[in-house]
Amino acid sequence: MEFQYYLPVNLIFGQGKADLVGEETARYGRRALVVTGRNSARKTGLLARIQDSLKKAGVSSVVYDQARPNPLASDACRGTALAREEKCDVVVAAGGGSIIDCGKAIAFLAKNDGDIFDYIFGLRNGSQALPLVALPTTCGTGSEGNCFAVLTNDGTGDKKSLRNMVSLPKVSIIDPELMVTMPNGVASSVMFDALCHNMEAYLSKTTQPLVMQQALFGVELLSDNIRRALADHSDMEAWARVCLGSTLGGMCINMAGVALPHGMEHPASGLRDIMHGRGLAALSPVIYEATIPRAPEKFQVLAQHMGGGDFLVLLTELLRDIGLETTLSAEGVRKEDVEWMADNCLKVSAAAISAHPVQFDREAIAELYRRAM
Amino acid sequence: MEFQYYLPVNLIFGQGKADLVGEETARYGRRALVVTGRNSARKTGLLARIQDSLKKAGVSSVVYDQARPNPLASDACRGTALAREEKCDVVVAAGGGSIIDCGKAIAFLAKNDGDIFDYIFGLRNGSQALPLVALPTTCGTGSEGNCFAVLTNDGTGDKKSLRNMVSLPKVSIIDPELMVTMPNGVASSVMFDALCHNMEAYLSKTTQPLVMQQALFGVELLSDNIRRALADHSDMEAWARVCLGSTLGGMCINMAGVALPHGMEHPASGLRDIMHGRGLAALSPVIYEATIPRAPEKFQVLAQHMGGGDFLVLLTELLRDIGLETTLSAEGVRKEDVEWMADNCLKVSAAAISAHPVQFDREAIAELYRRAM
Repeated sequence: MEFQYYLPVNLIFGQGKADLVGEETARYGRRALVVTGRNSARKTGLLARIQDSLKKAGVSSVVYDQARPNPLASDACRGTALAREEKCDVVVAAGGGSIIDCGKAIAFLAKNDGDIFDYIFGLRNGSQALPLVALPTTCGTGSEGNCFAVLTNDGTGDKKSLRNMVSLPKVSIIDPELMVTMPNGVASSVMFDALCHNMEAYLSKTTQPLVMQQALFGVELLSDNIRRALADHSDMEAWARVCLGSTLGGMCINMAGVALPHGMEHPASGLRDIMHGRGLAALSPVIYEATIPRAPEKFQVLAQHMGGGDFLVLLTELLRDIGLETTLSAEGVRKEDVEWMADNCLKVSAAAISAHPVQFDREAIAELYRRAM
Repeated sequence: MEFQYYLPVNLIFGQGKADLVGEETARYGRRALVVTGRNSARKTGLLARIQDSLKKAGVSSVVYDQARPNPLASDACRGTALAREEKCDVVVAAGGGSIIDCGKAIAFLAKNDGDIFDYIFGLRNGSQALPLVALPTTCGTGSEGNCFAVLTNDGTGDKKSLRNMVSLPKVSIIDPELMVTMPNGVASSVMFDALCHNMEAYLSKTTQPLVMQQALFGVELLSDNIRRALADHSDMEAWARVCLGSTLGGMCINMAGVALPHGMEHPASGLRDIMHGRGLAALSPVIYEATIPRAPEKFQVLAQHMGGGDFLVLLTELLRDIGLETTLSAEGVRKEDVEWMADNCLKVSAAAISAHPVQFDREAIAELYRRAM
């Protein structure tokens, strides 16, 4: 047994904790770039609340509200220009995983020149970033618990994550109250993403004892509570448990990476801008069906933590119950995309392919895409 | 559900990893104070190995080998004087929990003037310390996974921990090969200490979801492997699992604190210099026997993770099997010590008393001491 475990993020979890953002940010800087999406943080009042909390703590702020779902490298570049122009010394990212990822990329680029994809593909290496405070408003990516920033290259469509520990948030404030306003169409998708992170980190060949424990706890929390949370947005206990499961998923993939479902989903959503969780819902059953016969043991453990029974049955029942029974075609992927996706998967997801418990080559991956259509 | 979780220590775990000490230390400083015990690190060759590794990584070093079991505040003061005199900018502590605690205290005092007990009792607060690299050679205290430094006041006999996050090791290298040379008389005692940390952190009223998971994992690893490890020192898998259980225990108490067994043991070993694990072995069954009827639920969960059955039976069988069936009198505590210990327990262990699932007042605590005689 050998491993390395290091995840120096201060997790502050609980209803109402969002109001600590000023106090926590003040530990790291005096002028914050607040990164949000285009609308929702304004509409819900979260942006005003953050600005107010920062002000009370003596932190001035400037807002960058052009971060988008599946953020483009160019979105991050524009935010970086603003951060530099305004001499920000700390970044506060409030929103879904995409927004937090965009915040991570901005915090990174503020301290590292050049094309972020050079860093993503390992051609260059960065050793610093602005400190980042994350306030997730969705419970899916777990971006608050890891250093990953998934970005899409405007030019090539490559969707791949920057993975540099300097981009790990210093503090993440996980306030379940910020999540409950999500409509179920979004919530089901992000929650399934969270479940996938935990499953894949557990299954990954690069997993390790501490991650396995956290991942199984995450699987348990999510399997037990996703249905409850979606059925009743006032069931704060269920929402809190889903949120914790989501953060755990994010933490787990930081240490153990993802496996083939995420590896194959990125090409699909990079190309067709589909919802990440829906892409995973189309691909996961197909991939696992082909995986289980050749590596059954770990799926039995997963099934136990999902309430017991047959893993594939449990998975497809969950997808059905939360309205995520879907296919890649239904999500807008076309038959002629398969070859590009298979090629792109090898390009952007080499680590995920090799971490998967069973090895699939390019042709097998293309075949899995076809089956998921 | 609400909690805060923050434990920024880089855990490097595995056989042979001790040789990374130079490389890891070089990230934090150029001149190391190496803190060890009086003999064993020299005898086993570990000290030479550390010095060699540091030298190769370009880190010069000076040795302080006067750290003792149940370290006194004065031991730490002498080490601090040496660190200052030699202008050390990093501390490497290699040894049992006491040595690592002494290293923590030295790293802290090097940056904070005055009496360490002023900081321990919260009369003063420190905000910095020298960076610390820990190499545990016992698998008990879990000191490598937390910021606690238990010290005994030369004057008053008070035994209490400094708890300041600045004293958390930057890196802990947990190399099971360094542990296997422990004689069983020591090993059984430290391993039981590790089990107690996990149990008490799980039982503690200040516990939290992530800690509960880690603690139960620790209980499982230790319950399954302590007997195996003691029976066969070449069973590296069992030793590795015990070591991980020990580190987990240390991590858990950092976030959730300890409960009454540790709270009551510190006065005993502070007064009579008995082995910590033996003190815990004398006290735990008595304390839990009085606790279980008034808070049975969590003990059922603990028992499940110990292999199933009745908690008290499982605990006493383990103590019997590993040669730790003992009493306070057998360990050298005298009848006339009871009143002092009860008073001292209230003085040094207020947090542990209040974190215990059932509240015991001074008289009840004195009665528990008497029953453990």
